[in-house]
Amino acid sequence: MADKPKIVIVGGGFGGIKIAKLFAKENVEVTLIDRHNFHLFQPLLYQVSTSVLSTDEIAYPIRSFFRKAKNFKLFMAKARGVDQERNVVITNHGEISYDYLILAAGATTNFFGMKEVEEHAFGMKTIQEALHIRNHVLHEFERASKPYRTPEDRKKRMTFVVVGGGPTGVEEAGALTELIEIQKKEIHELDFNDVSVKLIEATSRILPMMSEDLQQKAIQVLKDKGVEVMLDTQVVGYDGDVLKLKNGVEIPTTTVIWAAGVRAVDMMANCGAETARDGRVWVEEDLRLKNSVHGNVFAIGDCAAFMHGDMQRPLATVAPVATQQAVVAHKNIMKLIKGDTNLEKFVYKDLGAMATIGRGQAVVNSPHMTGFLAWSAWMLVHLIRLAGAHANFTVAIKWAWNFLSGTRLGRIITNIDLEDKY
Amino acid sequence: MADKPKIVIVGGGFGGIKIAKLFAKENVEVTLIDRHNFHLFQPLLYQVSTSVLSTDEIAYPIRSFFRKAKNFKLFMAKARGVDQERNVVITNHGEISYDYLILAAGATTNFFGMKEVEEHAFGMKTIQEALHIRNHVLHEFERASKPYRTPEDRKKRMTFVVVGGGPTGVEEAGALTELIEIQKKEIHELDFNDVSVKLIEATSRILPMMSEDLQQKAIQVLKDKGVEVMLDTQVVGYDGDVLKLKNGVEIPTTTVIWAAGVRAVDMMANCGAETARDGRVWVEEDLRLKNSVHGNVFAIGDCAAFMHGDMQRPLATVAPVATQQAVVAHKNIMKLIKGDTNLEKFVYKDLGAMATIGRGQAVVNSPHMTGFLAWSAWMLVHLIRLAGAHANFTVAIKWAWNFLSGTRLGRIITNIDLEDKY
Repeated sequence: MADKPKIVIVGGGFGGIKIAKLFAKENVEVTLIDRHNFHLFQPLLYQVSTSVLSTDEIAYPIRSFFRKAKNFKLFMAKARGVDQERNVVITNHGEISYDYLILAAGATTNFFGMKEVEEHAFGMKTIQEALHIRNHVLHEFERASKPYRTPEDRKKRMTFVVVGGGPTGVEEAGALTELIEIQKKEIHELDFNDVSVKLIEATSRILPMMSEDLQQKAIQVLKDKGVEVMLDTQVVGYDGDVLKLKNGVEIPTTTVIWAAGVRAVDMMANCGAETARDGRVWVEEDLRLKNSVHGNVFAIGDCAAFMHGDMQRPLATVAPVATQQAVVAHKNIMKLIKGDTNLEKFVYKDLGAMATIGRGQAVVNSPHMTGFLAWSAWMLVHLIRLAGAHANFTVAIKWAWNFLSGTRLGRIITNIDLEDKY
Repeated sequence: MADKPKIVIVGGGFGGIKIAKLFAKENVEVTLIDRHNFHLFQPLLYQVSTSVLSTDEIAYPIRSFFRKAKNFKLFMAKARGVDQERNVVITNHGEISYDYLILAAGATTNFFGMKEVEEHAFGMKTIQEALHIRNHVLHEFERASKPYRTPEDRKKRMTFVVVGGGPTGVEEAGALTELIEIQKKEIHELDFNDVSVKLIEATSRILPMMSEDLQQKAIQVLKDKGVEVMLDTQVVGYDGDVLKLKNGVEIPTTTVIWAAGVRAVDMMANCGAETARDGRVWVEEDLRLKNSVHGNVFAIGDCAAFMHGDMQRPLATVAPVATQQAVVAHKNIMKLIKGDTNLEKFVYKDLGAMATIGRGQAVVNSPHMTGFLAWSAWMLVHLIRLAGAHANFTVAIKWAWNFLSGTRLGRIITNIDLEDKY
């Protein structure tokens, strides 16, 4: 059946996996291109970075989703762009031709052009970045506990700064304070008065998608956990040693975790499409690229900028947008395959937002909840969404264990130079 | 209490942790030096390398063992040697002085001087090495499944060679065949006739510590699983592309896992002590270094060469020797602290040996067992020994899940170059 329609999907995130699953059941050939062989459950990345979960628990082999789908192929490669004229995706392992293409390539950290910050701060969008943060933070504790440190050096290493008051920043800051509590019980030779966590936010509020009372609640919970919340504070530079703020304040620190913004991945600029300021490609209401050459290229999720005519700004870069768009893009491509050009318009159904701030504490805006109840809801939603029955199970156990015992098992530093043998 | 005896331990393996736990209960100051912040359960390293377990499950933070011991310090550093005259350990983070020193620094891979092999083959003694093997093997499957590979290239990438017929080599080869069975179900675009696992052993038998019938049984089980067992076969070279054997045969392969021998870590040569051919330091029957300067330096486990007068060769480098020696070394140091110079002589109690060859298959020599019963015994012993109540629990679940479902969740490739963004 050489003439089955060739469906190519770029990206194995929430949107890419969802639409690949839908096409795997159709009489088409599906090729998913991803630079990794796994799907990453990004909302829990902060838990890897703070030693709660293992990488294997939030990363799921892409091929495992498609065990029974003989029409599915994974092409592990980095997509570099699209030649719409010739209907091919360009990758670092050659070209892949398509009849229909879905761009679901996702987002990366936005350092807003500050090269120096980009070089020295930690992003938190990939497994590797989360492991880098974990290794670095744990290692700084070991370095600070060495007897020959000066007080200034020790304090600098024990100052952990998170930039960005969105869910990722809030969750990371909260989780860091809990990691510190555990370290406190075990590192007998370190003075924990030197240890601090700061959350820096450029605007006057955190968790912008939440109502104001939930924002205030979240700030209070963070403060109770020992986080210094700095609102209306802009970062202007970071050299790996001193964080410089716009108000002239300088914070000596060896750890700056950057959760202050996202932009589309670089390849989106090479798709022959019109892009928004954050690099996302503009899509029509039917999810096809604006002004696409042959009308057979769709974009969904974090890499797509979608607006109805009456909206002020494009939809946010969150998983539910991606998965809902996957359903409509699949439907529209199946219509095109059948010769029906009357495509469906995408309408986003907002399911609300939730953010956890630590053990037993979360905020949920729909229905409006805080505290332990919200935290339970957060856990339930994330467990249900976590890919794979087994992952659900061990993550649930690990979370229960962490909650009851207050320990963290993942506190191992794995990036010691291999060559540097004993 | 500045005059508490200073006990310094080099190495957080089985011997080092055991003796540190014993001293943590005494009225002494304990400093453990290790280049890592975790204790590694080495017997299960092959399961990390074959995607069964996560790193966090076989690595346990050293400080967590000593949460309640305020007299315990971890000094994370690489020990480089000992100046016995001045009673100091030399590390890459300065010197640590001791009243009593226990060397428990362990072993590393022995390539028997073959530099080319060392450069291109995979060792399997550290977490990093196990992750390298995992990443490499999984990546080779993805590379081999690319449509543009030549048949020769594909076959070379799908030929997995394990060198060394000891427990590590046997377990690794068996586990690789199981990983392949799972890959077979998911990589629809690859011809699995190209995939093979070879186990190469220089002598005429595998598992030398086992009785001959168990050796034969193990070979049969390996063959049934699809492993080509090559006895009396010596490796003479490997350039990363072609493995050269002494008999002239050449095997094109991109994966050679070296489990053919161990030697003491390099620092043992810088302790001012007499060393055996494999780099281990000779110890007296009371576990003190032979001809030590002040009589206050002990060595235990894989880094120590111990013989009673009537033995043919030093005791093997296995965990039970290390932990039993830890008990006697602790006792002898406490005697010395109390002024008693009548030290106890170490006598090894052999508890038998066991090796697993895969799902439901193992051999145990004392009591003599094979098959599912031996495998159950192997699981039980390893679970009991695994550090930390939680690790026991999740590993047990994971093993049960793997056994029942025949899947492997850890098949994620994490070493993709970070800099190389989309």
